[in-house]
Amino acid sequence: MLQLEDSKCDLLITGAGPAGLMAATWAARCGIHARIVDKRGTKIFNGQADGLQCRSLEIFDSFGFADRVCKESNHMLEICLWNPDETGRIRRTDRIPDTIPGISRFQQVVLHQGRIERFFLDSLKEYSDIEIERGVLPEQLEIDHSKAEDERAYPIKVKIRHLDDDEATPVQNGTNVPDGLFRSSLAKDDTDDLIRKSRGKEGTTEVIRTKYMIGCDGAHSWTRRQLDFHMQGEQTDFIWGVLDIIPITNFPDIRMRCAIHSAESGSIMIIPRENRLVRFYIQLNEVNSAGQQVDRSKITPEIILKAAQKIMSPYKLTYDYCDWWTAYQIGQRVGNSFSCDDRVFLAGDAVHTHSPKAGQGMNVSMQDTYNLGWKIGLVVKGLAKRSILRTYQSERRRIAQDLIAFDHRFSRLFSGRPAKDAADEAGISMAEFKDAFEKGNMFASGLAVDYGASILVAKPGDSADQGDGTDVGPIINSIDKVVGKQELAGNIKLGMRFPSFQVLNQSDARPWHFGQFLKSDGRFRIIVLAGNLKDGKQWKRLQGFGESLAKPDSFLHRFTPSAKPVDSVIEILVIHSAPRKQVELLDLHEIFHPFDEKRGWDYEKVFVDDVSYHEGHGEAYKNFGVDKESGCVVIARPDQYVGWIGELEDVRDIDRYFSEVLIPQI
Amino acid sequence: MLQLEDSKCDLLITGAGPAGLMAATWAARCGIHARIVDKRGTKIFNGQADGLQCRSLEIFDSFGFADRVCKESNHMLEICLWNPDETGRIRRTDRIPDTIPGISRFQQVVLHQGRIERFFLDSLKEYSDIEIERGVLPEQLEIDHSKAEDERAYPIKVKIRHLDDDEATPVQNGTNVPDGLFRSSLAKDDTDDLIRKSRGKEGTTEVIRTKYMIGCDGAHSWTRRQLDFHMQGEQTDFIWGVLDIIPITNFPDIRMRCAIHSAESGSIMIIPRENRLVRFYIQLNEVNSAGQQVDRSKITPEIILKAAQKIMSPYKLTYDYCDWWTAYQIGQRVGNSFSCDDRVFLAGDAVHTHSPKAGQGMNVSMQDTYNLGWKIGLVVKGLAKRSILRTYQSERRRIAQDLIAFDHRFSRLFSGRPAKDAADEAGISMAEFKDAFEKGNMFASGLAVDYGASILVAKPGDSADQGDGTDVGPIINSIDKVVGKQELAGNIKLGMRFPSFQVLNQSDARPWHFGQFLKSDGRFRIIVLAGNLKDGKQWKRLQGFGESLAKPDSFLHRFTPSAKPVDSVIEILVIHSAPRKQVELLDLHEIFHPFDEKRGWDYEKVFVDDVSYHEGHGEAYKNFGVDKESGCVVIARPDQYVGWIGELEDVRDIDRYFSEVLIPQI
Repeated sequence: MLQLEDSKCDLLITGAGPAGLMAATWAARCGIHARIVDKRGTKIFNGQADGLQCRSLEIFDSFGFADRVCKESNHMLEICLWNPDETGRIRRTDRIPDTIPGISRFQQVVLHQGRIERFFLDSLKEYSDIEIERGVLPEQLEIDHSKAEDERAYPIKVKIRHLDDDEATPVQNGTNVPDGLFRSSLAKDDTDDLIRKSRGKEGTTEVIRTKYMIGCDGAHSWTRRQLDFHMQGEQTDFIWGVLDIIPITNFPDIRMRCAIHSAESGSIMIIPRENRLVRFYIQLNEVNSAGQQVDRSKITPEIILKAAQKIMSPYKLTYDYCDWWTAYQIGQRVGNSFSCDDRVFLAGDAVHTHSPKAGQGMNVSMQDTYNLGWKIGLVVKGLAKRSILRTYQSERRRIAQDLIAFDHRFSRLFSGRPAKDAADEAGISMAEFKDAFEKGNMFASGLAVDYGASILVAKPGDSADQGDGTDVGPIINSIDKVVGKQELAGNIKLGMRFPSFQVLNQSDARPWHFGQFLKSDGRFRIIVLAGNLKDGKQWKRLQGFGESLAKPDSFLHRFTPSAKPVDSVIEILVIHSAPRKQVELLDLHEIFHPFDEKRGWDYEKVFVDDVSYHEGHGEAYKNFGVDKESGCVVIARPDQYVGWIGELEDVRDIDRYFSEVLIPQI
Repeated sequence: MLQLEDSKCDLLITGAGPAGLMAATWAARCGIHARIVDKRGTKIFNGQADGLQCRSLEIFDSFGFADRVCKESNHMLEICLWNPDETGRIRRTDRIPDTIPGISRFQQVVLHQGRIERFFLDSLKEYSDIEIERGVLPEQLEIDHSKAEDERAYPIKVKIRHLDDDEATPVQNGTNVPDGLFRSSLAKDDTDDLIRKSRGKEGTTEVIRTKYMIGCDGAHSWTRRQLDFHMQGEQTDFIWGVLDIIPITNFPDIRMRCAIHSAESGSIMIIPRENRLVRFYIQLNEVNSAGQQVDRSKITPEIILKAAQKIMSPYKLTYDYCDWWTAYQIGQRVGNSFSCDDRVFLAGDAVHTHSPKAGQGMNVSMQDTYNLGWKIGLVVKGLAKRSILRTYQSERRRIAQDLIAFDHRFSRLFSGRPAKDAADEAGISMAEFKDAFEKGNMFASGLAVDYGASILVAKPGDSADQGDGTDVGPIINSIDKVVGKQELAGNIKLGMRFPSFQVLNQSDARPWHFGQFLKSDGRFRIIVLAGNLKDGKQWKRLQGFGESLAKPDSFLHRFTPSAKPVDSVIEILVIHSAPRKQVELLDLHEIFHPFDEKRGWDYEKVFVDDVSYHEGHGEAYKNFGVDKESGCVVIARPDQYVGWIGELEDVRDIDRYFSEVLIPQI
């Protein structure tokens, strides 16, 4: 075994699934030197995760590829609940909108994980030189704890091995289904990715010294084992089969998402997918009947189909094409810790496992590293303090705990036998199930995420209580803690993601969802809801705010490197509520439309809440819950979560917020 | 000079600009053997055309790439008219929506022609093996007129020469502007296309025998000269300069489309573009003052800018970056014939030239071959009769004539000096200009196209009168001519494109613009507006219609090759108006949701005019102007133009329509 010379990087990511790719994508956008390794020789082509929350689509949009997902995916609009009637025959009993109307500009969709990974890979290629090093296995991890707080140190040493071709070729888990790769209409544009060797280093080892590391290496995480962290929780006895097929059936709702409870034969969840595929989650009662340890090797697609046919009777179900199948046992478990020294982090399946039926896994995993990536990026670049890294565990371990609690309840209701009547206490009440389903929909959208008080979220209350127990409040005297004025914006919630409604660009009248401007580029944003600029007093308030920002010693200038454009660390965006035609962009203070010697004025920072020619009125102020006359000011973190809310005069509070988070550059 | 062996193809296209690429795209989708050659060694990277009509975007959508255009382009929402006030200072006098609200699901956008060509090239690559053969020059054309009507013949013989590298390298026309290629942010993904040699055949000649040929070889068309056709019309004395720059200016409407008439210094049209670019069309009065022959070599970007500064005074205008510039003289000319033997056709600039300011050129050119491509495709495949080819000239030469008339009037109004007052008869009335602009907007959208009566458009009246003078009516006795029932559908017009409104898929409740299902794949479509299916009588009418179609000797089966799926020549789509939740797809006659042994029922052919969960109600019946109870039936041609309208019982008329157009396959 040859030994290559040691190399250095800012961030090492192990595992190139959705969580790892999200972390790499942040590194690309922040411009730090990251490497991402994966022991598998290829990316995946079939099966695995598929459900995408509204929130995940919003995040994809902030990176510029939500449109590709929307185009290729199946959009799920309606959930149909099927339950046994008094004779035991299944009947459609309810229809529920799959995505709660109005909560997002996106609706929940389904698309094969392999395509999502493709979009990440294309995005990495467009914005950076980061390539996935496939067929690479980490072998040894050492952390120099004494250097953890030294900002210039590379305290992590990882020895990796570049596998040979044979070692890196993925092993199909025992299946008699023909490999879908060459049949799938999606395979075409993946041909350049079949086996990406590790840059001609096969058969060698290499020592990487890195500042930061994220273990996105799955449920059996190697990184987690090196840190001696463990999963807390338990397995259940329920066994489920999964079939990805093109169904041939007379079941009327096969293109709807369905939850079917049969009287005695178990339950099915139907997830219609792209390219006429349908995913079935099928309860395997017979296999599991005696409560014995199940022999997984006996499960075949035929057994799973047979169970499905029984549950869906009297409707017929067969198939000619099966794309993928698997079987799993439900378990809900969370890692005891997500971070070592705020240097090595765990994310995704490495720290939470649960049932796949609510379509949460890929989403929550990606959102782990979506929360973490920019924090590491800003710290590595010397723009932000290391203390913001502490918020990763408090914010995301709390989410994992909530997820597990949700999944525990939901799985129990879905796996249980329907009650025959009110007296049947061993059975599950279908009314209770429907109620849980509807409530779960908000959670499942990803939009219920509400991060607790910390130096990044200026809200009242105790940081430890609101997070996973870790203290992540400000270091300064807590009497002087900055607290945002939630009362100024009824529907812009401290700790939650900034909501999006349609506004118009002041300079060209084009309607946009405002969220489209909250790009994931590592910048904080100050969103100035400037109110009614036709009112002389309000106009003066805005110009006064602009003058404060423009001062040489303002936070805007203190935290921005002097050689960089004024909007490179904190971007100011304005939405006013006066009639568009009565306001001229160039009359606003220059700080709101900065001048560039080569490109002239900036025409993309001032918006208006007014009616569009072709797409109606966004009613943004009304939907934000903000007063149309007096407005307010909001700080959005680089991940769009609301950090602070205040008035146009509260410049000192904004200064204090950023002083806790950012590092002066002059 | 080496001579390669003769080769054969179905269609030879000369010229790989937008018109040629559109023709090639149809060939790709119809699956015929086409070749496309271009004498230039590379595609274009700067300047040229940029405006895209609503109709062009609808067409792009039917090929699947409108989304790419919408994402990259600048969307123009508002036109601002600037005119001199009584002191002679320019003032904003009016704002007009750029696209008339409600006429299309798209709005007019602007994007560099090179990107449009890129999308065509990517689409060709995805759907066919057709590659642009660049650096190829046609040298000799022979047509065997005696074989023109022989369907199996290859009556056209073209000798082509494959240029050497030096010959194929494009010559920059004298400019001191640095070549924008390496600076343009759009150049990135074009790098694989710099010089595409003609498959290693440089320096050889080749004889191609082809069934059909389209000359898309521009204003100086070689093909036109071989046919001895000529352009009719005249040049004018007005000279205009064009600048593509990133402007540095305090003019407030620089991101709006503007028409500026100065008091004495001439006019400017402003077209804001992608990537902060703005295109200026600038009248060059001084150069042209004495009415002499203008020395074009004296025109520079500096002279053009100076003219612009004078017109836009007192506003300032400079630039640091100029992407492209040119100067032109307005002329309006139309070819005397568009076709020779219905074997060799001319399209685009080869048969119409006019001023660029109304953004029509690229659109009308593409729509020429959009009209022609499917006709050639279906004839070559033996599905349609050769007589449909006659409609190309009658439909498109008429459009060219209309365009030239429009441009003539518009140019005169735009180039003229504004009248000082009502008594100033030599000046142009600004009220008249505004009126022309507003009326021109409908024409400029591309949606006013209304093809005359022919075997493809079953409308009353005389074919020659409604077209360019060519007779293209049915061959059969005119007493028996099929005429559609226009009165059944107020807003679905015989001869115009089928309009699009939002409907829901019956099987999964997903909202779609119905136009998204009118794909350009060479199929005719029967759109069954099935009315209220909850009414027993209406239900029976629809089932009766289904039974007629399903008969073994129905037109559907007669014109479809027996080995092909039933929907491969004529596709049936249904939109009903009963509540979605009260109709089950599988209850409808099987012909409306055909069964496939490997893929089950078809879930993508039945739609409903009902409210969606997230995107309101499309009110399709109301917008179509069709009775919600009794509905109607519409034939849409492969290019979405309406061929016939009738009732559910008018199966015999549908049969007669198709009998004129299609060839029986059994």
